[in-house]
Amino acid sequence: MIKNFQQTINEEIEKLSAELSLPPSELYEPIRYMLSMGGKRIRPLFVLMGCDLFGGKMSDAISPALAIELLHNFTLVHDDIMDNAPLRRKKPTVHTKWNTPTAILSGDVMMVKAYQLICRSKLPPKILDSVLSIFNQMAIKVCEGQQWDVNYENLHKISIQQYFQMIELKTAVLLAACLKIGVLIGGAHQEDANNLYEFGKNTGIAFQLQDDLLDVYGDAEKFGKQKGGDILANKKTFLLLKAMDITSANQYMNEELLQWMSIKPTEGKDAEEKINSVTRIYDFANIKKITEEEINSYHKKAITSLERASASSEKKKELIDFTSALLQREV
Amino acid sequence: MIKNFQQTINEEIEKLSAELSLPPSELYEPIRYMLSMGGKRIRPLFVLMGCDLFGGKMSDAISPALAIELLHNFTLVHDDIMDNAPLRRKKPTVHTKWNTPTAILSGDVMMVKAYQLICRSKLPPKILDSVLSIFNQMAIKVCEGQQWDVNYENLHKISIQQYFQMIELKTAVLLAACLKIGVLIGGAHQEDANNLYEFGKNTGIAFQLQDDLLDVYGDAEKFGKQKGGDILANKKTFLLLKAMDITSANQYMNEELLQWMSIKPTEGKDAEEKINSVTRIYDFANIKKITEEEINSYHKKAITSLERASASSEKKKELIDFTSALLQREV
Repeated sequence: MIKNFQQTINEEIEKLSAELSLPPSELYEPIRYMLSMGGKRIRPLFVLMGCDLFGGKMSDAISPALAIELLHNFTLVHDDIMDNAPLRRKKPTVHTKWNTPTAILSGDVMMVKAYQLICRSKLPPKILDSVLSIFNQMAIKVCEGQQWDVNYENLHKISIQQYFQMIELKTAVLLAACLKIGVLIGGAHQEDANNLYEFGKNTGIAFQLQDDLLDVYGDAEKFGKQKGGDILANKKTFLLLKAMDITSANQYMNEELLQWMSIKPTEGKDAEEKINSVTRIYDFANIKKITEEEINSYHKKAITSLERASASSEKKKELIDFTSALLQREV
Repeated sequence: MIKNFQQTINEEIEKLSAELSLPPSELYEPIRYMLSMGGKRIRPLFVLMGCDLFGGKMSDAISPALAIELLHNFTLVHDDIMDNAPLRRKKPTVHTKWNTPTAILSGDVMMVKAYQLICRSKLPPKILDSVLSIFNQMAIKVCEGQQWDVNYENLHKISIQQYFQMIELKTAVLLAACLKIGVLIGGAHQEDANNLYEFGKNTGIAFQLQDDLLDVYGDAEKFGKQKGGDILANKKTFLLLKAMDITSANQYMNEELLQWMSIKPTEGKDAEEKINSVTRIYDFANIKKITEEEINSYHKKAITSLERASASSEKKKELIDFTSALLQREV
């Protein structure tokens, strides 16, 4: 079933991309470029799987599914500008390949196109109302999450609670909204829609924690990112915040961690030494295991919500297997 | 009636602004800042006047009216980043007062909030569908217009036809959409909606031509912008393009114009000399009168479309008087 969904999503993205061969090319080429970057398409897949969970037709959910993929790509394009990111999936980011005005504008168009896809989905008015309302709230939260992320970059330290609030907004509510939108289109009642929202949210938090983990302990080749990139950027990941907490009882180690954070080599031997040293501190503080336990805990919380939903056990199992497989990837 | 509408719009903008006193303040303060800048609120006014033209209730149109004001402000914030504009209405632009990431993100939130306002407007499903569809198409065209504007900046010359296509997308379709949305909410039929769209579009083109004119021939104090700013920026205005066309028969003058365009003083004596010299060429080519005639021609075209609409003559006159007054402002 999942393979079937994935194939449809890829075909529909190709169709959409072909429809966007429009002038001015400076505006539409970056959209096609982003859509061609591939990826696991987890978000539209969640919409379709959510719809299927309650016996809905894929054809009703495909347009909103694509809308969410576009919205996701819009946030990537704008976030990459804000983060000064040169690369995404080993390819130049839009503002690097073109320029910042083009990246701002083509991002804007992606957002409008997302709304256009939802509006054209021919859903019954009541469902359309709900879908738009969830979509709006989610999009606002994603922007809020990104703003907190930008704010926190300039702070010396944030609490683990602040970290979780931030990733919930920035990452998890998007996945939560995918499922809620999908199941409502599929015909779920409000209570089940909320169960699936919780499933998506906690799964999203688990995904983000795993992203943090893979940056340090993942296979860089498979992961497609520079290993230790978060360490070099002093990014406030769960690993770093937890390590700061744990080492606070050990003055020597805590000072070493703070010292590494006070220097910002970006490449070469110094960068390598920083990554290795911070990783040694993480190892000492048992951060890998702690993070894995945290991931498991959020995944279990997600599954508990899913189990509460009144959908077929078989289809629920499909969803659990899918997220479990994603959470075991390449660590 | 117009005063009544204006008062309601200002009150509702204040209410909206109060509702947006939210964390993170870095995200919401810029929105409140933009909304507090004032202005003539022509766009929401057009929505309300359009609705009133066909006997609709103001309460049905106010939410979409605010949505369009938000969308307009979103485009201003993002355009100011792209144009490197330090000031707007004599105040620092958002990316200058805060920073570019904040300007990108708060612009994004404004767009989502605009959709939220439309979705919450409790319009009948069929009308809501139309309003969203017009809004989506308009927003995409506005982005396309801005991209053409960015593209044209790097070209040595564009045709007057390209200029009109660009300002139609960038400026005029927004005003056209305001009226079309307003009259549909008011109960107009499709044909009248299209008549009002044409009225708004041609009025919008007339407004932009007048903006171009005021930059050179307006009262700088009242206009609130640096006089001759477009000349210094070599902006491809109607005045410049027309002057290039007309002087093409006069080699000496044409070369002088091209020479002035090859240097880019931004302030001081050189800047003043450039403004004065280019204005002299404009005077020689009779550009002021030609532009005024063009404005009148678009305004007349607009009125012809309005007169076709099956609304009360009295209310149509109100709309004509309003736009006529705006077109005679401070020249």
